[in-house]
Amino acid sequence: MTLAPLSSTPRSTLTRKKDRAATDRQALYDVLREGLICHLGLVRDGAPVVLPTGYGRDGDTLYLHGSTGSGNIRDAARGIDVCVTVTLVDAIVYARSLNNHSMNYRSAVIHGRARQVTDADEKTRALRALTDQLAPGSWEHARGVNAKESASVAVIAVDLAEAAVKIRAGDAIDEPEDVETGTAWAGVLPVRTVFGPPEPASYVPDGTPVPPHVHDRA
Amino acid sequence: MTLAPLSSTPRSTLTRKKDRAATDRQALYDVLREGLICHLGLVRDGAPVVLPTGYGRDGDTLYLHGSTGSGNIRDAARGIDVCVTVTLVDAIVYARSLNNHSMNYRSAVIHGRARQVTDADEKTRALRALTDQLAPGSWEHARGVNAKESASVAVIAVDLAEAAVKIRAGDAIDEPEDVETGTAWAGVLPVRTVFGPPEPASYVPDGTPVPPHVHDRA
Repeated sequence: MTLAPLSSTPRSTLTRKKDRAATDRQALYDVLREGLICHLGLVRDGAPVVLPTGYGRDGDTLYLHGSTGSGNIRDAARGIDVCVTVTLVDAIVYARSLNNHSMNYRSAVIHGRARQVTDADEKTRALRALTDQLAPGSWEHARGVNAKESASVAVIAVDLAEAAVKIRAGDAIDEPEDVETGTAWAGVLPVRTVFGPPEPASYVPDGTPVPPHVHDRA
Repeated sequence: MTLAPLSSTPRSTLTRKKDRAATDRQALYDVLREGLICHLGLVRDGAPVVLPTGYGRDGDTLYLHGSTGSGNIRDAARGIDVCVTVTLVDAIVYARSLNNHSMNYRSAVIHGRARQVTDADEKTRALRALTDQLAPGSWEHARGVNAKESASVAVIAVDLAEAAVKIRAGDAIDEPEDVETGTAWAGVLPVRTVFGPPEPASYVPDGTPVPPHVHDRA
């Protein structure tokens, strides 16, 4: 399958470190697949607001959700401009010079206009995408969303049309003179996100097995 | 030491899930101490932009830095409003109902006006704070920043005056009827950020020991 390339509007085109830009859509999907949260940016009263929140992808649409009581979500539902950023930290990069210390990371910065999801079928697909991102397997395992619960959730859609993916990977890079004559250690310290042992809720009967979608999550 | 409480302007006061608000300054310091990156929000051409970047704290000032060639950093250096958010994901919360799925997390959302750091002494303190956050121990170990390198870095300061800290911790919470009659598993799957084995740069001689500040980082 050939994927449409990402758009290259001025704000989604990197002006610096262009070698770190990934322009294909698969790179965007890859970053989104691994993330647990995004940071949603919007403008309120002229000032920026950045909030951590869950997300899910269905095709070329990104879905976010929140309580209908949240002012930020109500604002977003009005169709304002948003910026949604997902960042994966892969390593701390130690160089021989402080100035060349860095991080290995993958980030996706998505620009778009938020749209409130009102169609019932799309809302179900969105909630499924959000669940599959947060807790794969729970859609099949847990009690579904009833009408009252669905009404209390506002779902926002953002088209995956204008986005910039940036990747820094690989070794430390130092100035030639530091490579030549330096003695400090340089290299990469990997950063990993891992899951610890599951802790059952107090109301889950003793001896209840932890289901595979939780137990084997990696 | 008694710390000044965080301010409670309308935008830094939670309107929902108020039980998740931490109002003391120590809670803010605690979140900032553990994070590796922040998400910097600013407004460009009327639209929000959210970028991942490193940060450091010195007293009640948060420092960010970037290349003097970066348009976003140049904008921030002009003294515009910014929002800086640091989020730590602690666990996936599985509930018996999809609607009560959640995350345990700690987040700090800082509002302020950016200020460019021009004083040489403050710039040094800022670069030290940034280094100590990214790579504790490197300030003492690696080659320092020379005048040319310092000139290529723009440092931005944000006062830690207006901030909201939000914490969700503890067990899953389900509706009484699901607790009573549900059979789905519920509980908490801890999420941890860990460091893998250090990988020396190609130009570090074989057999060079990994220094303790890298080797023992936890």
